[in-house]
This record gives sequence, C-alpha cells and structure tokens, in this order.
Amino acid sequence: MRKPRLMTPGPAMVPEDVLLELARPVIHHRSAEAKDVIVEVTAGLKEVFCTKNDVMILTSSGTGAMEATAVNTVPPGGKALVLNAGYFAARWASICKAYGINAVTLDTEWGQPVDPDAVANALRQNPDTACVMGTLSETSTGTGHPVEAIGRVVADSPAVFAVDGISGVGAMECRTDEWGIDLLCVGSQKALMLPPGLAFVAVSPKAWEKIDAFNAHSFYFNLKAARKKAADFDTPYTPAHTLILALRAALRRLREEGMEAVWERHRRMSEACQAGVVALGLELFSSRPAEGLTAFRVPAGMKDSDIRNKLAERFGITTVGGQDKLKGKIVRIGHMGYTDEMDVIGTLAALEMTLAELGRDVEPGRAVTAAQQVLIGARSAAGVG
Amino acid sequence: MRKPRLMTPGPAMVPEDVLLELARPVIHHRSAEAKDVIVEVTAGLKEVFCTKNDVMILTSSGTGAMEATAVNTVPPGGKALVLNAGYFAARWASICKAYGINAVTLDTEWGQPVDPDAVANALRQNPDTACVMGTLSETSTGTGHPVEAIGRVVADSPAVFAVDGISGVGAMECRTDEWGIDLLCVGSQKALMLPPGLAFVAVSPKAWEKIDAFNAHSFYFNLKAARKKAADFDTPYTPAHTLILALRAALRRLREEGMEAVWERHRRMSEACQAGVVALGLELFSSRPAEGLTAFRVPAGMKDSDIRNKLAERFGITTVGGQDKLKGKIVRIGHMGYTDEMDVIGTLAALEMTLAELGRDVEPGRAVTAAQQVLIGARSAAGVG
Repeated sequence: MRKPRLMTPGPAMVPEDVLLELARPVIHHRSAEAKDVIVEVTAGLKEVFCTKNDVMILTSSGTGAMEATAVNTVPPGGKALVLNAGYFAARWASICKAYGINAVTLDTEWGQPVDPDAVANALRQNPDTACVMGTLSETSTGTGHPVEAIGRVVADSPAVFAVDGISGVGAMECRTDEWGIDLLCVGSQKALMLPPGLAFVAVSPKAWEKIDAFNAHSFYFNLKAARKKAADFDTPYTPAHTLILALRAALRRLREEGMEAVWERHRRMSEACQAGVVALGLELFSSRPAEGLTAFRVPAGMKDSDIRNKLAERFGITTVGGQDKLKGKIVRIGHMGYTDEMDVIGTLAALEMTLAELGRDVEPGRAVTAAQQVLIGARSAAGVG
Repeated sequence: MRKPRLMTPGPAMVPEDVLLELARPVIHHRSAEAKDVIVEVTAGLKEVFCTKNDVMILTSSGTGAMEATAVNTVPPGGKALVLNAGYFAARWASICKAYGINAVTLDTEWGQPVDPDAVANALRQNPDTACVMGTLSETSTGTGHPVEAIGRVVADSPAVFAVDGISGVGAMECRTDEWGIDLLCVGSQKALMLPPGLAFVAVSPKAWEKIDAFNAHSFYFNLKAARKKAADFDTPYTPAHTLILALRAALRRLREEGMEAVWERHRRMSEACQAGVVALGLELFSSRPAEGLTAFRVPAGMKDSDIRNKLAERFGITTVGGQDKLKGKIVRIGHMGYTDEMDVIGTLAALEMTLAELGRDVEPGRAVTAAQQVLIGARSAAGVG
C-alpha cells in the first residue's frame, strides 16, 4: 500500500471535500448561479488577503498574475525595481525583459531576506521607479521577506509595491492594505488548498492610477478588462469554473478556521519542522525561514536525490530539491494549506529513518521529539533557529 | 426535482467518469507520474487534431491560445488578415490591436461562411500578410467555415493559417495537417468534454519558422518557452494538472469512439436539431451551420429571454442567446461533447412545449418527429435546411 503525502511547497494537498466540489457537473459561467459563486469567493478572497482592494480572478498559474501585474503597471521603457533574492523573484525580471520594461535589480544573496534600507536606497537612486516587485515567501529558498517593512518604504515613494504572494499568502501573515501592498499576486495551489489553475491579483487605487495611465500590450491578462467584468462579478473570458466552485469550499474552510488561526497553524508547523531539522544536525538554508516550507542544506557526502527518492519510495512523501543554482544543494519540505502537525511529525520521522538508512549517524526520534516540544509549547520559537 | 442539461456551446457537459478524475488527490506536476500523463495526452491530442505537429498545453481559456498564436507569430507592426465573420473572429482583431499587430479584416456577414476566393483576393492585395486568422466553428453565429478550402488558399502564400477551433474541434471534422492549418487553437470546455481551464495550440513547422524569426512580447504565452518544455513533456509554469488528468480520461473516451465516429455523431445531432427547429417553422440563423451548435432566429413577437428562461426553469435546459449585435435576436442550442441524440430530442420536445406555452401555434411532436426521421436515416441531410 502506498499512501501519498504531498509535502511540497505547491501544489499542496487539497481537502477531500474541496476535491469533491471539482467533480460536480459543470454549470454555465454566465448563469446567475455562477455569479453568486463569484460574489462569495470575491468577498472570501478579500478576507484572506486582508484587503478592501479589487480582486481579479485569472485562469492561469501564479506566473500569469505576475505578468498581469508587470505589464499593466509599467509601460514599455518604464522602470521596475526587482527585489531579486531567488528563482521566483528573478521571474519578475524575466517578465519585464519580455515586455521591454527596464528592470533594475536589487540583488540579495539567496536565502537572505531583502533589506528594507537597501530598498530605500535603491528607490532614492531610481526615483523614476514605477513599480517595486518583491516576494512574500521565496519558494526556491524557503525565505520569508520583511514585506511589511518594505511596504512602508515603498509607500513613501511614487512607486507601487507588487508582491508575489503565491506560496506565501495563507501560509504567512499578509495584511495587504495595512502593509501597503498595491498588487498582490496569489496562486490557487498553495495555502489556498486548491489544485493549480487559478490566480488572483488584488489591485489598490494607487495601482489603478498607474494602470489607467497607459494602454498595456496585454489582452488575456489585461487588468482594465478584468476590472470592468469584475464590477459585475464576471470575468472577461471563460474562467476555470470548476476550480472556482472548489475555491468557494476552500474559502469557507479558511473563514471557519479564521486567518489568525491559519497563520498561527503555519507558524507552529514551520517552527516544529525547523526544530526537527536542526535536531538532526541539518542546516537550515534560510536565515529568515518562510512559514509554508522548510529548506535545509544537503549534508556533505549525501545526494539530495537519495534523500528525496527514499522519502518518496519508502514512505510515500514527496518533497522537492533545489532549483537553478541550488540544484542538488537543498531539500525543501512544504507544510502549507491542507497540512497538519501530524503530517509534519510524520515527515520528520521519515526523514530520520531515511537518513539513518542512508548511513548517517541519526538517533531515531530526535527530530520528532524536538518538533513535539515546539508543538506543546515546551520550547520557544526563539530557541529553534 | 431539477435535472440540469447544459445544452450550451461551451462549457458543455462532462462525462461522470471524467468529473471523478478531477476529484483525485493532486500529484506533483514535475513527478514521473505527471510526465507519463503528459506523454499520453500529447499523443491523444494529436490524434484528435489529426496532426503530427507539436501540441502545446496552456493553462488558460481558449482566448489564451489565440493570444499565444497571434503574438508569437506576428511581430508588432506585422500584418495579419482576420477573417471577420462573428464575435469570436473579431477577437483575433482585438488581440492584434492590443499588441500593435496590423490587422486587416475581411468582413463577412454574420451567419455566412467566409468565401475562400475572397481570402485569395485579400492575400493578393496584402502579400505581406504574416498570418491569416480564421475560425472553424463561429460560436456566436453557429456557422461552420470552409477551413479546408481556405487552407488550400493560404498554403499557396507565405502566410501561416491560424484557426480558432475552440468550439469546432471534436464537433466537426478538422484535419489539421491535410488542411494546412499551421496554428490550431482549442479549448477544453467544448467537444473535448472537460471543464474550462486548459487550452491547446498545435504548431506546424511553417509556423515555427515565423515564431523563431523574432522575440515576441510574451512570457506566460511564449510558444518558444512552451516548445522547450514540451520536448521533455513538461510545461513552463505549473499547469492545471487536475484538468490534465481529466483530459487523459476524456481522450481515452474519444479514442475508443474513434474520431470519424465522433464527427459523425455530431453531424447527426446537428442535422436532427436543425430538422426539428425548421419543422417548428423557425429560421436557422446560419446558411452553413456548424455541427456543434444550432442557432435559430427568435420568431417575431417573441423574446429570446422568455424562450430561454422557460427552457431553463421548466425543463432544466440551459441554452444561450445572441452576443453583441445578435443580442435578443437568436437562440443557440449546443450539442457537442458529452451530448447524445436523446439530449437533442429532449431539447426539441422542451422547445415545442415552451413555444406552445408562450402562445405560438405549435403542433407537439413535430420537431421531435423531424429529428427522429433524420436519426433513423429516413430523411437526408440535404432535405433539412
């Protein structure tokens, strides 16, 4: 028997009742019934994103939301400041390049958080920046960036602040309006507990001003067209309506749990996972870990694929390795969305056994015990890293 | 009790076993298991499209496939010839406009088929045309265009032939390679029997030459990036993988039925529906009806909404009205994908009762009988229109 556990930083596991929504007969997306669903999910997304801003629903991966954000906000030849600290942050720059946007990058070492003071400096040096493009949770390094502090810096400038919250929102505190996030990009397949296929952009009035100032080279991802339809709880093109029905079910779960509790659950799982990893003598990759995933360095003398393959084959647990320059150097464990404390403990137990079987000197139970101590509050978060 | 029947030209009904695929636990899209699925669906799509060309899988509505086609094939300032004969054909021109492509439109009256000779003329007048953009089945008017004959005309020119086959492919014969279709755009929610959320583009070597000749302003819909990943049965960004699992199930059904039989089923349903509509004294809107839907004019003195609302409320049958300048003027009945002869007969019976209840002089059973005569072969297709 193989019982799969998808401990990846997206796609993440989906609750059974949400999956069953997907199996319901398709309804017409222009029907009154479909409109009622859009009304409800729009309100629900605003709660999850902590925003009163407009929320656009796109049928695409999260990258589509990033593209919509970039091309609608910065005209060709305009300037964007990309807070480049990982594989996905670099995608902002790639999108800019494809559309002739002048992307100035503020490079931060992978695994380190972006420094808000450095952002302030960069903005002083580039006062014509139209948009600062950052990341809440950098999935490639498992780093959480200080978005609240960066938001304060950007708010003092004429630039808007765009945040890739794809693997962050729902897994980490994110107060869109309070923190001055003008364009928040979110994907369905992470902490929102859905399969991939939907993306969202929350757009502030400050962002709409930029967007209204020019005609973007964009059709499918045109935010003005999306706003026009969203005002009537509709979408410009046929949406992935089955996923929107599932979204309604997922949002009802989040509302019932409450966002404060959802964030707290992820914080607990994150700290427990970190404690377990550290107790095994492994090194966390990030100096400021994100709360939806834990990345650790592959120990000297071991191969990441050996670790991940054994986790998968022996224990049914899927994890991911590193991307780009981190290929082979880290292992990433996701704990977001429909994941609970027992999933984290099970994964740590499997990791202990995996490392022991691969010949590393590991005392079984050590990681599990360390995680348990966090979960019962016997060990403070501060004592973990 | 309300038993819904989605007789719309997309989204169309989805088989129960395909819906259940959607409820399966999410797997990681970069896993070996996921790759096997992409291998199988890529082969299956090629069979359905009758092509040996590369097939790209996009997570978007069909409009995304059209945008990918336009922006990757024609550089800004380049020329496209749009075969403008309906609401969706006009979308080609809108996409071109958004991206600075010079769209020359060949206008055909809505409901009439595009004339291949007129296309030849237009190409002679515009020898610098990079791409001819046409439609297999114009969903807004219920018209099937002579794509095979147009393809022969375009093949003689340096231009490539792009076809919106979104509501056509699977419902009408479409031999991509034989007919010289260089870029075929297809959506998931029509005759492929899936919910909305996936789109496909089949790209010929002649089209790749155009695409390779410049760097398109495109990131999410960049076909070069898609080709690079497709070579390894992967996608550039996280795909709507749940829908791809369902696609595998739907393609297995199509393969089992066989494309010739699938086309023949749609032809039969189409002729039966037309015969029924005509038997009620109603006027078909199109002079060359598509085979996935039937459009008829709203009779003088009646309102389209009265007809459609009664069909929906009394009989659970969803149809659609006209779009844009046809608003209020036509009713469209879809019969594509997971639709059978009994669905068509039921819809005609409901239409008879609806018209009778709305005060029209209708003899119950007339439309049903006419449809039955077609279905048992007692009445030839030629005698219908």
